[in-house]
Amino acid sequence: MKSPIIALITDFGTEDGYVGAMKGQILKLAPKCVITDISHSIRPYDIRQAAFCLNNSYPYFPDKTIFVAVVDPGVGTTRRGVVIKTSQHIFVGPDNGVFSYIFYNEGFQAYEIDLASLPNHISNTFHGRDVFSRIAALATVDGQLDKHLKTIKEVRNFLTQPAKLAEFELMLEVIHVDHFGNLILNFHRNDLIKFEKTPEIRVEFDDIRLDSVSETFGSVADGELALLWDSSKFLQIAQNKGNASKKLGAGVGKKIRLYL
Amino acid sequence: MKSPIIALITDFGTEDGYVGAMKGQILKLAPKCVITDISHSIRPYDIRQAAFCLNNSYPYFPDKTIFVAVVDPGVGTTRRGVVIKTSQHIFVGPDNGVFSYIFYNEGFQAYEIDLASLPNHISNTFHGRDVFSRIAALATVDGQLDKHLKTIKEVRNFLTQPAKLAEFELMLEVIHVDHFGNLILNFHRNDLIKFEKTPEIRVEFDDIRLDSVSETFGSVADGELALLWDSSKFLQIAQNKGNASKKLGAGVGKKIRLYL
Amino acid sequence: MKSPIIALITDFGTEDGYVGAMKGQILKLAPKCVITDISHSIRPYDIRQAAFCLNNSYPYFPDKTIFVAVVDPGVGTTRRGVVIKTSQHIFVGPDNGVFSYIFYNEGFQAYEIDLASLPNHISNTFHGRDVFSRIAALATVDGQLDKHLKTIKEVRNFLTQPAKLAEFELMLEVIHVDHFGNLILNFHRNDLIKFEKTPEIRVEFDDIRLDSVSETFGSVADGELALLWDSSKFLQIAQNKGNASKKLGAGVGKKIRLYL
Repeated sequence: MKSPIIALITDFGTEDGYVGAMKGQILKLAPKCVITDISHSIRPYDIRQAAFCLNNSYPYFPDKTIFVAVVDPGVGTTRRGVVIKTSQHIFVGPDNGVFSYIFYNEGFQAYEIDLASLPNHISNTFHGRDVFSRIAALATVDGQLDKHLKTIKEVRNFLTQPAKLAEFELMLEVIHVDHFGNLILNFHRNDLIKFEKTPEIRVEFDDIRLDSVSETFGSVADGELALLWDSSKFLQIAQNKGNASKKLGAGVGKKIRLYL
Repeated sequence: MKSPIIALITDFGTEDGYVGAMKGQILKLAPKCVITDISHSIRPYDIRQAAFCLNNSYPYFPDKTIFVAVVDPGVGTTRRGVVIKTSQHIFVGPDNGVFSYIFYNEGFQAYEIDLASLPNHISNTFHGRDVFSRIAALATVDGQLDKHLKTIKEVRNFLTQPAKLAEFELMLEVIHVDHFGNLILNFHRNDLIKFEKTPEIRVEFDDIRLDSVSETFGSVADGELALLWDSSKFLQIAQNKGNASKKLGAGVGKKIRLYL
Repeated sequence: MKSPIIALITDFGTEDGYVGAMKGQILKLAPKCVITDISHSIRPYDIRQAAFCLNNSYPYFPDKTIFVAVVDPGVGTTRRGVVIKTSQHIFVGPDNGVFSYIFYNEGFQAYEIDLASLPNHISNTFHGRDVFSRIAALATVDGQLDKHLKTIKEVRNFLTQPAKLAEFELMLEVIHVDHFGNLILNFHRNDLIKFEKTPEIRVEFDDIRLDSVSETFGSVADGELALLWDSSKFLQIAQNKGNASKKLGAGVGKKIRLYL
């Protein structure tokens, strides 16, 4: 029998022991599970970075993997804790948009966590340990999880479509800057499915123009900019062996004009 | 049968492979154990940060978990290697105060590691790999650990009590700044047990006064300061969705006046 | 039966989910394997740091451990993916020198990964997920790996010998600066084996002279410089409880004169 997998994303860093507390809690309640770190270096409170990180990771995990995402500036307020189930995976965390890409990608059912149904004391500052780790551990045992859930219809979702400027012209936005300084744009390769023939793509911003999509980073000379499909099929602007974000002084929110 | 858990805290970072060497050593000697990372991003040589991190984590782990804490500026000198046993857990590391909170929290027995009893070569610069990882691996096998231990009576402990200024006035100190910039003070909720009725609490420092303990971060407006019990029940000063340490220019050692 | 171990080194950081994708991929294909993080904080594109990190770690791991090293600025170009087998371990990654220390340390056989033999789609920007993780997972199953390999004779290796200036005088170079600021030099304790009697060692650079090899960091006063054998037996310059690199303003490439 395979061990259940619980994968963690937080903005906690590791140096205070908050992640350690979550791991201890999980191992105490679900001693046979395998804990997998996705990231604990999400920028503090950066829900969008966590959402992007989760989106890059979760599709590759085995069926039934349980993901716990804790970037939770609203902990202890009225923001809800939620469980999202898809046909393959279970997601646990605050209802603040951290699961936005999952809603975009696939069908899902959403549940609110009924805090009153949990037998333990719940602190007001650390639901990662007192609620979400416990719920994840319960999700490893058949029939335990649903006792603590109430179906809900609406969930927070921050994803928006690019603005349409003309028939073949969109205003994109940088939605993520990765570790290498690549600028990820809110345009997905699947957005081209509606075209019979894959159109040429061109982007423009400031005085820069990138006329076609390159095959890989090394398709352009060292230090040059390239337009690419990233490994999750979002359009990105990269600098070969460099850091496009630093070179361009551009970050999340930067507007990029796309011509099809 | 449950796998033994060995949890690690170091100031090694991961980029040099020192943590990798410890993990390899442990897996070679205790192939069935589960290694859990608590942190490898303790500030170099910062024994107090490691002690705090351990204190936030260890109570949540299953019984018999073995913790290895290696922040060890004195490696290779006469400082002792120690094993601390409590009713639930085993702790392995240098005798430099890194286990101070455990001594504060609960009963324990302390042992010196007898280096001469170990069969392998021991480097002078890396006891994390050559001594503490080995001892942790031995602790997973019944009857193996005690062969390498000698009972001791005194251990290093850096925790001190807040200074009493008047009957209901204490001089507290910031003992830890966490990843979010929260300022943790050396005053624990249990220090109030002696009062029949939980007293009001007020803190003052510089020209700032915080008059009561808030329920959670979001109990005050964004950017405002709040006084809270942290998730390990120490008093803390936090800034809602901000970084109190940066806002106040305050770090470890900052004096804070407490009125009960 | 022991679980197969797959150990990871990357320059990905964790915050984008790229490491998560690799872990998911591995767990999907090899559900019984144990994934061990060595490091994901290698400096972006720094093949030499990754090679050093791997060298410090791999010798301590159990036989049959599979190491995946992905620092891969040339991904998607004609650079090859390789598998290196030694008598004890298997290494998977790009052919860019990241395995240089392994070639230096021991006998090995080298293979090119036949990309065309892999059944899945391979992106041009993320072979860590689409190639190397898959190959590592295949290596956990008897008889699966070799179907995807072609023997090769030459591999990239960046290690060079110190320049000989006179019979007992060498020009060394700093090859690595570790997390503590220790300066690691390209001179290994085994390089002294040829001497009948272990010679005295002295180093000089700028106006500094270190006359002998110390036993440990604490053999000199706090803040003083020491010459030491590091825990992998390379010569290093360290500052007791300090950061030699910062103190000296010296990094990788710094020339150090050695007198035997």
